[in-house]
Amino acid sequence: MPQPDSDRVLIFDTTLRDGEQSPGISLNTAEKLEIAQQLARLGVDVIEAGFPITSPGDFEAVQAIAREVTEPAPPIVTGLARTQVADIDAAHQAVRDAERPRIHTFISTSDIHIRHQLQTTREDVVGQARAAVAQAKGYVDDVEFSPMDATRADVEFTAEVVQTAIDEGATTINIPDTVGYAMPQEFTAFLERLYELVPALRGVVLSVHCHDDLGLAVANSFAGLLVGARQVECAVNGIGERAGNASLEEIVMLLHTRRPDVGLHTGINTRELARTSRLVSRLTGYVVQPNKAVVGRNAFAHESGIHQDGVLKERSTYEIMDATTIGLDANSIVLGKHSGRHALRQALEELGFEVSGQALNTAFKRFKEIADKKKQVTAMDLEALVTDELREESAGYTLEWFDVEASSRRPPHATVAVRRPDGSMVEGSFTGDGPVDAIFRAINASTGLDARLREFRVDAVTGGQDALGEVSVVLELEGQSAAGQGVATDILEAAGRAYVRALSNGVRRAELAAAAAAREGREGEELAKAP
Amino acid sequence: MPQPDSDRVLIFDTTLRDGEQSPGISLNTAEKLEIAQQLARLGVDVIEAGFPITSPGDFEAVQAIAREVTEPAPPIVTGLARTQVADIDAAHQAVRDAERPRIHTFISTSDIHIRHQLQTTREDVVGQARAAVAQAKGYVDDVEFSPMDATRADVEFTAEVVQTAIDEGATTINIPDTVGYAMPQEFTAFLERLYELVPALRGVVLSVHCHDDLGLAVANSFAGLLVGARQVECAVNGIGERAGNASLEEIVMLLHTRRPDVGLHTGINTRELARTSRLVSRLTGYVVQPNKAVVGRNAFAHESGIHQDGVLKERSTYEIMDATTIGLDANSIVLGKHSGRHALRQALEELGFEVSGQALNTAFKRFKEIADKKKQVTAMDLEALVTDELREESAGYTLEWFDVEASSRRPPHATVAVRRPDGSMVEGSFTGDGPVDAIFRAINASTGLDARLREFRVDAVTGGQDALGEVSVVLELEGQSAAGQGVATDILEAAGRAYVRALSNGVRRAELAAAAAAREGREGEELAKAP
Repeated sequence: MPQPDSDRVLIFDTTLRDGEQSPGISLNTAEKLEIAQQLARLGVDVIEAGFPITSPGDFEAVQAIAREVTEPAPPIVTGLARTQVADIDAAHQAVRDAERPRIHTFISTSDIHIRHQLQTTREDVVGQARAAVAQAKGYVDDVEFSPMDATRADVEFTAEVVQTAIDEGATTINIPDTVGYAMPQEFTAFLERLYELVPALRGVVLSVHCHDDLGLAVANSFAGLLVGARQVECAVNGIGERAGNASLEEIVMLLHTRRPDVGLHTGINTRELARTSRLVSRLTGYVVQPNKAVVGRNAFAHESGIHQDGVLKERSTYEIMDATTIGLDANSIVLGKHSGRHALRQALEELGFEVSGQALNTAFKRFKEIADKKKQVTAMDLEALVTDELREESAGYTLEWFDVEASSRRPPHATVAVRRPDGSMVEGSFTGDGPVDAIFRAINASTGLDARLREFRVDAVTGGQDALGEVSVVLELEGQSAAGQGVATDILEAAGRAYVRALSNGVRRAELAAAAAAREGREGEELAKAP
Repeated sequence: MPQPDSDRVLIFDTTLRDGEQSPGISLNTAEKLEIAQQLARLGVDVIEAGFPITSPGDFEAVQAIAREVTEPAPPIVTGLARTQVADIDAAHQAVRDAERPRIHTFISTSDIHIRHQLQTTREDVVGQARAAVAQAKGYVDDVEFSPMDATRADVEFTAEVVQTAIDEGATTINIPDTVGYAMPQEFTAFLERLYELVPALRGVVLSVHCHDDLGLAVANSFAGLLVGARQVECAVNGIGERAGNASLEEIVMLLHTRRPDVGLHTGINTRELARTSRLVSRLTGYVVQPNKAVVGRNAFAHESGIHQDGVLKERSTYEIMDATTIGLDANSIVLGKHSGRHALRQALEELGFEVSGQALNTAFKRFKEIADKKKQVTAMDLEALVTDELREESAGYTLEWFDVEASSRRPPHATVAVRRPDGSMVEGSFTGDGPVDAIFRAINASTGLDARLREFRVDAVTGGQDALGEVSVVLELEGQSAAGQGVATDILEAAGRAYVRALSNGVRRAELAAAAAAREGREGEELAKAP
């Protein structure tokens, strides 16, 4: 237990970096900011906001988060960087305006990565790690270093690299189980051996970063904490590469629930967990399965007669956590069609959204449209509406109106009007296999874009016959996959909104890809000049 | 390591018992049989087919599975029973026709359950356990006993109860972490202590049954195996009460992937994992989140440039499992509109569905309808169609046709024709907030049933613009919640089919509930007569 407050665990959230690397997720800067602001309200210690070198969009989002996320307390904001000079420069530029900036650099220490991916030598890896940490340390005090794929690496060699990073001033050493291969007892042994080989590790923060490929991400992270790690890298809803990262909410509630026995604690305001989970699910389009621990729809539901009987007699017979602890009772705000602008504003403020001026007018207009169709507008509906509005940030296509005739007895037919980014209006008609297909084809026809639908999903935001429907689509346009979501009481309207947003994202992605290709071409030429 | 083949782990699947206890899941006998047959193909050792005393439907399904699931090898089929005489009688009646019947009986050993739920004494618990195991042993050789909530119980008292069960002939002792509270190191210590206190435990099979409330179900199960357990209770997709059970596919792939280091193995044909997961998800209506380990859509997807680069250079840089191992390449069968009956039958056989006679005619008709709308009909489409047909088994309402007019500029309007269980046809029209809402209201109007929609979800079965859509709805009817699913290329048609099926289920559930209430009333009267 190396740290001064030896039982305080730092929560390092990588939803916006490793999580955003999941297929089909494409968050714009406004959406990333909204998530970061919610993470700050949740009380995470570190926000890994992105990987600045990878694209101008990533850079811009990390910079915006570094500058703007300060309430209720400024979190540490970090950006990821390979050991290259340009990577660390970009990460520094992106995070420098944060009150508490951190640079996080990494290089693989497993022979399988060194040989096949980096195509270099162990000696070179040590040199790169040394140079990168030194460079980062020249910019900021707070430097994190990760030996990638450590759990499949030689522990002695990893220790050598870690020692080098500490010598150069790294203040956090993070051990990633990059491919989700470790078993808890094995991970424990690896970390214990690392402590033996690098006594200086007791003078810095040891961190763990575990993937869930074998279903052990939380268990491995926890095993790390039990041997002395005091930072956990995790993501909301456990999203991330492949099977994702350790779930933030599971780690937090494990430590919270078992605190009397384990003695560790975090700075997380657990009552924000449910809302954070919903926000991330909505903006990423990644559904949370009903049987997901802590934040799944059924995590607190008791179905069998025996369990229901027990809970009615005494809650603790079948409940180890209280639903209110994670904020599941917070859905108490209810507005109706007679609620005014002031009530809406107040309700939004209670939800943590500061809305005024034109944004409030827009929100109020959408609210009234919904309230006309729904008896009660709940906090979850408001969340959905506000996050839906966030999506309008970037200029793109909008669906102005549509007409559909559908029947089981003849093919459905749709007519749509779409406003293009330049403000002009186009119309199109098409017949499809179903009404949604007809609308999508009509949108393609009107815009002249040849997008192909890859995924389609609808969820009800709240229960009841008049529930808001939320549609998520993923489409493919010019080799880029892009996602879009739409919210409405009418599923066809929600589908149309989602589709034009995905189109807008797809067009933007295709442009960025073209720009990146052009840039790489230039860099290639420049590199060719260097020895 | 107590057993003869000391490194063989038995897979006990409780998808149809603990899994089916999840809110909103309502499987009919044909659906349960289909899942059980797939579980047998998957190679599970034990199928816990239900809890026979709880309802006539549960009894009937367990009996059907015991009688009919014999290929490729007869699994052990078990039914759950409390320690009551009637429970064990019912379980025995239900499983007796299996080639390998087992009775599984349980009673809580934690003081919190004994005091608050059972409202009895430790002494009485010992007596009930003794009597129940003895009774079961009188019927079958293979008897499993579980001290419920063991991880929160006094280990000495639990040992006493376990010793009693073994004395009476229990052949498997299962330790449940009923509320998902245990930590791996704690569970390890509990089981080690149990082995010390009950040396006879080495002469029977030790089993573990872990819940995922803190995200540790797989890790705790694995910890149990490492100290000597040789049976794991788990469920496909990790479904079950609250956050569910340990995921079958995670346990299996953990043991498979780490076999060189751990040395344990199962009898599972891993190439059936993906299909089993899809079948269970489709029939239960429980979505698998994209970042779910092993069977999530993205479990084998690589998104970041660095990871993609590594995998292209050498797969093992970022992959510890091969997608083909879990059967993800099995989606190679493709039929088109010109494919004939023979090709369809052959394709279905490859998928493990034996279809002939009238069922083949029906399947062929549905196939042709779909093939007319879709260029390629894949194995996943066929799976969806066949499982969709399974749902027609019980007499109920069917949607004959519908017409919908929808627009963003006026309220949508639907007209439907529904055939009632008695064969008569009714029509209805209604206006709604959206086209789906309009159809649902029109169905309510036509049938005169006052159902309320609680959940609504749409998934695309396969990718592409012409994908089959699968709609799941959960509705409430007379205080009962009931689910239904429907598959079609037209989302409105799929929604309508799903809704009338949920209605049929709801009507059936309401009738069963009424019958059960009447029965309980009678039993109450009889009990009142006894001293």
